[in-house]
Amino acid sequence: MAEILSEKLTVVKVGGGVLEDVSSLAGFLDRFVALPGLKILVHGGGRVATKLSEQLNIESRMVEGRRITDAGTIDIVTMVYGGLINKKTVAALQARGCNAGGFTGADMNLIEAVKRPVKDIDYGFVGDVTKVNNEVLAILLKSGITPVMAPLTHDGKGQLLNTNADTIASEIAGAMSGLFEVSLVFCFEKPGVLTDTDDDNSVIPQINSTSYKTFKEEGIIHSGMIPKIDNSFDALQKGVKQVIITSASTLDLNSGTRISL
Amino acid sequence: MAEILSEKLTVVKVGGGVLEDVSSLAGFLDRFVALPGLKILVHGGGRVATKLSEQLNIESRMVEGRRITDAGTIDIVTMVYGGLINKKTVAALQARGCNAGGFTGADMNLIEAVKRPVKDIDYGFVGDVTKVNNEVLAILLKSGITPVMAPLTHDGKGQLLNTNADTIASEIAGAMSGLFEVSLVFCFEKPGVLTDTDDDNSVIPQINSTSYKTFKEEGIIHSGMIPKIDNSFDALQKGVKQVIITSASTLDLNSGTRISL
Repeated sequence: MAEILSEKLTVVKVGGGVLEDVSSLAGFLDRFVALPGLKILVHGGGRVATKLSEQLNIESRMVEGRRITDAGTIDIVTMVYGGLINKKTVAALQARGCNAGGFTGADMNLIEAVKRPVKDIDYGFVGDVTKVNNEVLAILLKSGITPVMAPLTHDGKGQLLNTNADTIASEIAGAMSGLFEVSLVFCFEKPGVLTDTDDDNSVIPQINSTSYKTFKEEGIIHSGMIPKIDNSFDALQKGVKQVIITSASTLDLNSGTRISL
Repeated sequence: MAEILSEKLTVVKVGGGVLEDVSSLAGFLDRFVALPGLKILVHGGGRVATKLSEQLNIESRMVEGRRITDAGTIDIVTMVYGGLINKKTVAALQARGCNAGGFTGADMNLIEAVKRPVKDIDYGFVGDVTKVNNEVLAILLKSGITPVMAPLTHDGKGQLLNTNADTIASEIAGAMSGLFEVSLVFCFEKPGVLTDTDDDNSVIPQINSTSYKTFKEEGIIHSGMIPKIDNSFDALQKGVKQVIITSASTLDLNSGTRISL
């Protein structure tokens, strides 16, 4: 597949806040479709899953921002991530002339995982990615399909596993970087990584591994942003060309925060 | 694609009763995987959708066995058909060494439909199939993928549509018959079309258009079986080689009821 190595692929991850709001989702999808070149969209959906859990009186237990996925909860996230959000997004992209196909990691064995081993915390049916089948994704992309990935994987033994959407995006970007020139874009409600979470003008334009260490020590980068940036460095180490954390409301790859090694 | 015209493809539709029961589903999937040649599985899931609707206090309205699909209900069936049942089935097939991929009609624009026009009854978000993109399904099959189809289509304008699973199976079988030698198999709890619904030994081995007319006039074939057999004749008229209505508990293509023109 050497002939396609120089072809550009953008892997975009969009978070739950954007997906929940109909008008911001519509605008985001317009901008996603307008991005040049081959594309993969990865979505979350945790807030919608939490809402459905409440309606069904199933308790949502979170530890360090990660959902504890018991038997009832894996059914909820399979319905919400694999069904509701994924298929609505696909239908909305089709309406925009983008030939989207919505998949979980179980579909076509795209993403294999293992159930996270129990150490201090039993996360339940949560998957740690072991392999992304990049060649199947490449066949889909070359057939004109835009994959839309739900944050679900499987263990190959019949069990679906809930898997963090940032991790899915980072693992896909890393695996595809052997075949394409890959950009990884994390989109959310904020314009980038901020030094002051209350000030949208405090975007950090560039973070490298040295400044990241400092930002963490100073407490400027903390909580949910840490796994996102860790995922960014993982992707860069696997050969991803650039990682950008930016606003879903612009999807401007020249703004936001650029992560480099 | 003339070179594959003689290749055999079996389109199997399995109903909600089988899907609901874990042990009968497991046995059915074992038998499905063991079928020789290329395969497509189409599933229903109405009973599971009805149960979730009840849990969420959304009323399930049925007219002549067809679900009235309002805005709340299309979300329910998208979650249940497109998410829960589809992805669990895919994961279970993957565990059996079958490289399944679960899709709705919106995915890769596989099945285009129009919202059913309102005549006497407003069915809501229900789709009448206008086109099956058989060449995309052929690419998937040739890539070693076994498509698992949820009974959902889309209108190309962003709206998902609930579509009868028997109709999906029949439309897919008909569309694929230009490319493959297609068998269409409807599986359910009964061993075939019965002259006496209480007697499993009363299977009608063969129905053609003449005997079908007589069976209907005599009231032997009635209610839910009529659209299933109408779908069978539609498929045969589109070039499907054989249609068999048989038991999911045997999936024996040499038993049950064979429909011919």
